Amino acid sequence: MDFDVLRELIRPSETKIVFAVIDGLGGLPSLQKGLTELEAAHTPHLDALAKESICGLHQPVATGITPGSGPGHLGLFGYDPLRYRVGRGVLSALGIGFDLKWEDVAARGNFCTLDDRGQVVDRRAGRISSKRNRELCDRLRNIQVEGVEVFVETVKEHRFLLVLRGEMLSEDVSDTDPQQTGKPPRDPVPLSEDARKTSDVVNRFADQARHVLAENHPANMVLLRGFSKKPEWPQMGEIFGVRPAVIAGYPMYRGLGRLIGMEVIQTGEEFDEELQSLKENWDGYDFFFIHAKPADSAGEDGDFDRKVSWIEHFDERVPKILSLKPDVLVVTGDHSTPSVMKSHSWHPVPVLLRASTCRRDPVERFGETACLAGALGPRLPAADLLPLALAHARRLEKFGA
Amino acid sequence: MDFDVLRELIRPSETKIVFAVIDGLGGLPSLQKGLTELEAAHTPHLDALAKESICGLHQPVATGITPGSGPGHLGLFGYDPLRYRVGRGVLSALGIGFDLKWEDVAARGNFCTLDDRGQVVDRRAGRISSKRNRELCDRLRNIQVEGVEVFVETVKEHRFLLVLRGEMLSEDVSDTDPQQTGKPPRDPVPLSEDARKTSDVVNRFADQARHVLAENHPANMVLLRGFSKKPEWPQMGEIFGVRPAVIAGYPMYRGLGRLIGMEVIQTGEEFDEELQSLKENWDGYDFFFIHAKPADSAGEDGDFDRKVSWIEHFDERVPKILSLKPDVLVVTGDHSTPSVMKSHSWHPVPVLLRASTCRRDPVERFGETACLAGALGPRLPAADLLPLALAHARRLEKFGA
Repeated sequence: MDFDVLRELIRPSETKIVFAVIDGLGGLPSLQKGLTELEAAHTPHLDALAKESICGLHQPVATGITPGSGPGHLGLFGYDPLRYRVGRGVLSALGIGFDLKWEDVAARGNFCTLDDRGQVVDRRAGRISSKRNRELCDRLRNIQVEGVEVFVETVKEHRFLLVLRGEMLSEDVSDTDPQQTGKPPRDPVPLSEDARKTSDVVNRFADQARHVLAENHPANMVLLRGFSKKPEWPQMGEIFGVRPAVIAGYPMYRGLGRLIGMEVIQTGEEFDEELQSLKENWDGYDFFFIHAKPADSAGEDGDFDRKVSWIEHFDERVPKILSLKPDVLVVTGDHSTPSVMKSHSWHPVPVLLRASTCRRDPVERFGETACLAGALGPRLPAADLLPLALAHARRLEKFGA
Repeated sequence: MDFDVLRELIRPSETKIVFAVIDGLGGLPSLQKGLTELEAAHTPHLDALAKESICGLHQPVATGITPGSGPGHLGLFGYDPLRYRVGRGVLSALGIGFDLKWEDVAARGNFCTLDDRGQVVDRRAGRISSKRNRELCDRLRNIQVEGVEVFVETVKEHRFLLVLRGEMLSEDVSDTDPQQTGKPPRDPVPLSEDARKTSDVVNRFADQARHVLAENHPANMVLLRGFSKKPEWPQMGEIFGVRPAVIAGYPMYRGLGRLIGMEVIQTGEEFDEELQSLKENWDGYDFFFIHAKPADSAGEDGDFDRKVSWIEHFDERVPKILSLKPDVLVVTGDHSTPSVMKSHSWHPVPVLLRASTCRRDPVERFGETACLAGALGPRLPAADLLPLALAHARRLEKFGA
């Protein structure tokens, strides 16, 4: 939806909208049970919601496209992810509150494990502790590269942030992460003429990091990806007329929210803490993005039963959200993470939207197959969800005479 | 659909297409019955049609967007309403057959009621009679504003047309209609540098109108909106290869049809008169837009039962349309007007398309929930309907070799 059109239609309102996002919600049937994680889960509250909601499945990016975490969420917030692209580096920076300057180039770093032939055997270095991460970042900070200022910051577990600050830096540098084991880290390559200097800088940083970390098995090397600069985008408040807030235990999602103008609400890592933050901040905002991570992690780990359990954990807490009486409640995911695939996937994501202005549809259970019959259809563009939520929240004027 | 593509594909044919548009057809369930107006209505003929049609729901503009009458109809006729925008003033002018010149700026006027503090208490002045309207327009015609010629014409009830004719006039002037009661009329504001003169002219007209009407309670002021110039658009005949005609008792819909090249067929205000006109002019055209207004008016008035009755009234007359043996019959609305909302809404609109080349779909009743299962899907872009009708009328060649 064209932002200029929406801007013209927004009208002031006191109504409140909640987007509860279960990361990686969509799944695939297990071979044993023939049901997806969501279908196998006992979800009386979500099923009751589905009965009084309009349901369907949305596509975060486009048919057949598997979304990363950034695009998956941007779609939900009304930003076409094919148009609004953000690098992993920028997301990491925003997520830990790093004050990124316009000239900075940020990259997402992973500590990884190399074998003695120099090939990656674990892209996450056994998910080292955040404490260990901080010790290693202290060492990396000693690396000096001529002509730039280098920042290295712990994110969490095996993840860190690299920021290069200096003149004439470019984001057009290829990843050093080979994205698979059994291969060595890649050399960074300039992807445009302007990126030669940056590519050299990254190369020198990576060489020194290999040296500095050599004796620190399992975290004996770094992988860098998502070189990017801070994008200057229209903000949610200005386009959609909302005061938006993000409640997320994980840094990346806070960072993403901040990028489009959400205020970050202080919270803990547990979903119960997020719910508490939602309640305490209910009067301060009118659009809430509350993010629940564990289903995605379980899916990535291939743990069907843990994903089921976590969805049930979420379901038990639905009444807490409802007790706040949001005018519009959307429950969905940012993408699918089927346990049988151990990764994000392109499959459409179940979604329900509940408001007093919903028509009935025949959906009586919240699940992938049931939602096919819903009023939202089997492949709604995710970026349509937010305008639809605004409509149901009575926040849009009529278009045209 | 790109008009250039369609132009290349059109081929001559004797087939006939009818679009029967029930204004404001879509609804929401009443609290008591749990059914929408269309679902609550006894509609044996529409249900029989649905069985042999392809069904679904269409979106006139986009997900979440509530269409005005102009955009709602333009979508049905294949014109993307986000691209083809027409002001209310122009629509009003065309609807009463006012011969708008290219330099004219037209506005839709409402007689309204101000209280003694100058605040609007009724935006429609109690829907005064057309006779009273004519008397008041006679008075407004005496208003003189230097540098322009002023035309004031009765439309119907509380509605009139204002046309300003002169050099260097612009349509970029803000409405004086505050769109709500409890506020005074707004001052017109120039929305571009070129619009200063026009804005001044409007201001002077409004000031004098207040003076002229002061003693005419309830019609003691005017509200002006939709300042616009006549747009120069591609015509239906040239794009789609049809000889189109509009049959509508209400002026605006005739005006809209004329704007895209439909011929206006003389008719009365009753739907039975429109049906008579359809029959009498059957041989002269091959695309008919026949417009039925009362369901929308009932919805706007919040009168669920009257909307139901009128849909039943329409249903009884379906055989009259079928007796003419149209090759393609589309029955739908231009937007939803749920009685419980007393206004237009963004909800998708039930649609059926009947032709000898239709596949079967499972829909056996014409209603919002039933149509979800139809072949046209739950949110077909309205502008796809006309190309589809042309296809079923065998009026389009194969695309590509």
